[in-house]
Amino acid sequence: MEIFAVIAFAVSGITAALRAGMDFVGICFVAGVAAFGGGTIRDLLLDRRPFFWVEQDALLWMVVLICLGCSFFIRKSHVEVTEKWIQIPDAIGLGLFAALGTQVALIEGAPVAVALLMGVISSTFGGVLRDTFCNVVPKVFADHQPYVILALLGSVIVVCFDSLNVTAWIGLLFAVSITTVGRLVVLSFNISIPSWRT
Amino acid sequence: MEIFAVIAFAVSGITAALRAGMDFVGICFVAGVAAFGGGTIRDLLLDRRPFFWVEQDALLWMVVLICLGCSFFIRKSHVEVTEKWIQIPDAIGLGLFAALGTQVALIEGAPVAVALLMGVISSTFGGVLRDTFCNVVPKVFADHQPYVILALLGSVIVVCFDSLNVTAWIGLLFAVSITTVGRLVVLSFNISIPSWRT
Amino acid sequence: MEIFAVIAFAVSGITAALRAGMDFVGICFVAGVAAFGGGTIRDLLLDRRPFFWVEQDALLWMVVLICLGCSFFIRKSHVEVTEKWIQIPDAIGLGLFAALGTQVALIEGAPVAVALLMGVISSTFGGVLRDTFCNVVPKVFADHQPYVILALLGSVIVVCFDSLNVTAWIGLLFAVSITTVGRLVVLSFNISIPSWRT
Repeated sequence: MEIFAVIAFAVSGITAALRAGMDFVGICFVAGVAAFGGGTIRDLLLDRRPFFWVEQDALLWMVVLICLGCSFFIRKSHVEVTEKWIQIPDAIGLGLFAALGTQVALIEGAPVAVALLMGVISSTFGGVLRDTFCNVVPKVFADHQPYVILALLGSVIVVCFDSLNVTAWIGLLFAVSITTVGRLVVLSFNISIPSWRT
Repeated sequence: MEIFAVIAFAVSGITAALRAGMDFVGICFVAGVAAFGGGTIRDLLLDRRPFFWVEQDALLWMVVLICLGCSFFIRKSHVEVTEKWIQIPDAIGLGLFAALGTQVALIEGAPVAVALLMGVISSTFGGVLRDTFCNVVPKVFADHQPYVILALLGSVIVVCFDSLNVTAWIGLLFAVSITTVGRLVVLSFNISIPSWRT
Repeated sequence: MEIFAVIAFAVSGITAALRAGMDFVGICFVAGVAAFGGGTIRDLLLDRRPFFWVEQDALLWMVVLICLGCSFFIRKSHVEVTEKWIQIPDAIGLGLFAALGTQVALIEGAPVAVALLMGVISSTFGGVLRDTFCNVVPKVFADHQPYVILALLGSVIVVCFDSLNVTAWIGLLFAVSITTVGRLVVLSFNISIPSWRT
């Protein structure tokens, strides 16, 4: 399950890098940042070592292999199709990383505001860094569709279940389901948050 | 006093995010980066934990509340007025974070060059990250008005007073006043540093 | 030798900042990020303290002096000539930082994939951050010339020699030579990696 999410985030990096006109090196790098950036920033801020990609270095090899594979199969004309197709694993990844990030922060003894922030950061910061290196305004900040808000919702659920002393995995399961299903509903019905009045 | 500075930095993030066409989520994020980014990078580099926003997590809630408030009151047409209005608390923040950042680094036993760098980073890096995520060249690097130089001046004053063994708060007070007043003078008289010869 | 490399990376930062229309402050900052960014990220990820620029703070002063010097001598019209001229020390820096970064990660007990990554990050991330702050797509990701790949080659050589239990400096010397010579060959013959099919 987690592997699916990492793959989805990596593929989102590959399509973003292709759009920015990068070569193979850039694609590997942006895919890596999209897949590992959020969790790495979370672990840096919480001072947790070793990083999850140091413990499970198979994940690093996997992302490199995916980039190699994509260099044979993906072409620029495939970008739009791929972006549509990866939204489902991306929604799973969003829910999974938000719930896990919050859980990890609570275990480390962080206050509630920080735990919520860590859930949001570990699920969405990979995408923010991906877009920053591709030199565009981060998509999650400007597309007026709930994405970060759903990550926050998942984090809130984990915090609530935790404060009620429910066994951790029930809260995690519930949070992941709500976030993932929420994201899929948003995508199907094209729901957007109100924009600014001028 | 410190709260005023954090608010000023957060509001500068809100106006920058509005200019970049972001939605509510982007505004919260950029406001948070502008308010906490500089201090966080300083603490990461000096390996100080917990971060100041983990210890005082009320600051996090405050920034979220300000963003919520602004979403009702600020409109795009207000951006220019707001940017003018926040220059005074921003000048206070500049002086405050530069002096405190240098002081913190000296207490941690950093050499002089590093202490000066920490003063500059903690007061200006929030703005640099804010502009980077909004996909513009950081304003403090390209507007030819002394800003970082005044932060450096404040840091130098703190280092000088420290090497003379004066009680810390006198040096801090002096540094904050010089930097803040200097910034206000720069703004009133529109002073600029010489640009490059072509 | 290492000093030459730091100077080369700093000068590459200066020319990038000039191209982006920055003032003196921006030039100092971008030069510092280009020179120290890669090694700092490596040390942050490996949790090594103090940073090399805290131990040898003379390097910080040196970069500031170079920026001051350049502000008198470099003009915008010199940028292209300078960029050509710094490619030789830049190639040395690439080889040196890739080999040293890998060696440092191996000493810290990192797995192979992480050691390779650290070699690549410490030699190329300075340039990536430099271009990100200057608001352009990082050059090493999009110019289709082997640069990161050569850094990776040097890292692989260090890892191979290390696993054969050869004395460290022989592997380092070999890796630095291969990477540097390889880069110079690439530049002379204008070799490029295949681009994407559309």
